[in-house]
Amino acid sequence: MRKVYVVGVGMTKVGKHTEVSMRDLAAEAISNALDEVGNEKPEAIVVGNMLSSLVEQENLAALIADHAGLRGICGLKVEGACGSGGVAVLTGYLMVASGLYSKVLVVGVEKLLERPTPDTLRGLAYAADADYELIYGVSFAGLNALIMRYYMSKYNVKREELALWSVMMHQNGVKNPYAQLRNEITLETVLNSPVVADPIRLYDACPLSDGAAAIYLTNEDWKKLSDTPVLIAGVSNAVDSPDLSSRFSLDELFASRLSAENALRMAKLSVKDVDVAEIHDAYTITAAVSLESIGFAEKGKAAKLWSEGRFKPGDKPTINPSGGLKSRGHPVGATGVYQVAEVVMQLRGDFPGVLVPAEVGLTQNVGGVGSNVTTVLLKR
Amino acid sequence: MRKVYVVGVGMTKVGKHTEVSMRDLAAEAISNALDEVGNEKPEAIVVGNMLSSLVEQENLAALIADHAGLRGICGLKVEGACGSGGVAVLTGYLMVASGLYSKVLVVGVEKLLERPTPDTLRGLAYAADADYELIYGVSFAGLNALIMRYYMSKYNVKREELALWSVMMHQNGVKNPYAQLRNEITLETVLNSPVVADPIRLYDACPLSDGAAAIYLTNEDWKKLSDTPVLIAGVSNAVDSPDLSSRFSLDELFASRLSAENALRMAKLSVKDVDVAEIHDAYTITAAVSLESIGFAEKGKAAKLWSEGRFKPGDKPTINPSGGLKSRGHPVGATGVYQVAEVVMQLRGDFPGVLVPAEVGLTQNVGGVGSNVTTVLLKR
Repeated sequence: MRKVYVVGVGMTKVGKHTEVSMRDLAAEAISNALDEVGNEKPEAIVVGNMLSSLVEQENLAALIADHAGLRGICGLKVEGACGSGGVAVLTGYLMVASGLYSKVLVVGVEKLLERPTPDTLRGLAYAADADYELIYGVSFAGLNALIMRYYMSKYNVKREELALWSVMMHQNGVKNPYAQLRNEITLETVLNSPVVADPIRLYDACPLSDGAAAIYLTNEDWKKLSDTPVLIAGVSNAVDSPDLSSRFSLDELFASRLSAENALRMAKLSVKDVDVAEIHDAYTITAAVSLESIGFAEKGKAAKLWSEGRFKPGDKPTINPSGGLKSRGHPVGATGVYQVAEVVMQLRGDFPGVLVPAEVGLTQNVGGVGSNVTTVLLKR
Repeated sequence: MRKVYVVGVGMTKVGKHTEVSMRDLAAEAISNALDEVGNEKPEAIVVGNMLSSLVEQENLAALIADHAGLRGICGLKVEGACGSGGVAVLTGYLMVASGLYSKVLVVGVEKLLERPTPDTLRGLAYAADADYELIYGVSFAGLNALIMRYYMSKYNVKREELALWSVMMHQNGVKNPYAQLRNEITLETVLNSPVVADPIRLYDACPLSDGAAAIYLTNEDWKKLSDTPVLIAGVSNAVDSPDLSSRFSLDELFASRLSAENALRMAKLSVKDVDVAEIHDAYTITAAVSLESIGFAEKGKAAKLWSEGRFKPGDKPTINPSGGLKSRGHPVGATGVYQVAEVVMQLRGDFPGVLVPAEVGLTQNVGGVGSNVTTVLLKR
């Protein structure tokens, strides 16, 4: 298996981009990533996207490659719900690791603010089980609310403790020029925000976002394209039942745990080695169960730990210096690529927001309510 | 790069499957493929699908893996319009070739007959360019009709010559138990069928189809799972502009040519070595330009060749002994997987329809109007 390096990254600001098309948004991220490698032409492109069907467009790999001047290269789109960016990174990794391609561009792109919000929320619910869940009218927030209530009750976790996650994320995100929500908030902001699906309130949830991020992958032969190549030391994906009612456990993300264990084993690293991580905090409860499933906290303890000040910049591990999904935003199919781009910049020491000294980084991108999870280990 | 073998295949009959869910349809193909390898559990699943959004379901890899009893393995969906099955095969290949996974299941699944036909036709048009083509109301058949008229005029090809393709396909498909349209037709059937988009008539076009196909891929270590492993000797994908108006040429499928050239080079084979091929005859015109782009016929000569009896069972190469998209049917995201499964069975000598002696086989799956093309070379 050939070693795989990230030698270029590019991002657009996350936010509302109704004035540009999806292909233009992707092209901005691609252009930024290509700039970092002297515009060395890639041989393949992997596009991560979930909901371009909302704007009646599929065949995104051909569309985006052509618009970026890359006609004739290999191209495909991959999807794993909100974890589409993560599986795109995995697919790009496989292309280079196999030896079939030497220079691969992975781009995640999503436009959620193009359509009326009810249509978008309906689209996001396609990540759940249409036959066994959506038929009951449950929303994606509703499914996460079930877990939040169960978790709070089982582990005696206070609502205020969970809410402090959002406060910490906004503290980080306010310094990230790519973030969507760049304002500090207080505990009261969260507790007094409108109920979305009890007990989840607006500020427990990430925003709807547009955005695109790209990474350029290559092998040992081409890593000189960058002075600061970052090694993908491990990568693993695992799937779980989309339907919550058939899960082994409501408060453990089985696929998150498997994916993290496998990626760490592949990288010959322990969770204790991780200096910085970007995890998938779609809701405050998702942050808690993700941190526990990865192994950054014991069962039921994550919210207690962050309430005591853990995971802040300077701590090991620092979690979500970007501001996470909560503040940076969650352009669904792009999120997993943003995470890798951000952690690469942390390891290179050039992330323009909260920067922490780091040699080992981890990203975890979650699709559905933990049904498609990809973990990536990055090493300077 | 590790060698990759196909050691199991499974298919459902192509046709109308409104009585079963998408996950059940996929499970039937998976179960058939797993039967061939003694139910050896795969480590990863790749799902090829284009239009599950029509039934409000994404996250198919998790959904299908879980339903097939494969919770916890790696899973992702890939899409390249009507070429989704082809890119799924490529992705499965990369998984095994990289060494990251040893046993990989690739399943293509599509249900096009679940929704009213106008909705489905609209969905299929997502393969075209929403901003630059669909805005004018052109359908997918309409785009192919432009090419057909141009081709007939440029190369002085008669309408009757093109129509004979469909007659040949139905002759083959009538013997294929998995085919959707198992009736012989005459030249008059094609010429007198209703106009879809002039000059394309109903019998120039493939039907709308439901279906699922699966292949099981593995490496040298595990090829003993089958007594008759078939080597993937070459595989390559190329993309072109989805928007016809910006093509280099209307009557050559640039991506088809590139993809075939690259796959043949990788396999160290010439197009003359190919004994049997399954190509993407979505329309009679698609058959002609595909045969020419791959190199099975000179420019403008394909329809003349098949009018003279070439490409029939027994000829080298025999093209589409399955009946092709025209008669076997075209369950979009599954088609590229059907093609590989069929050619594998030709090479093993156990295809239950028209069977030709063959040592080298080729498949080519086309997304959009030639905008996402994957070619696979298979060897006994």
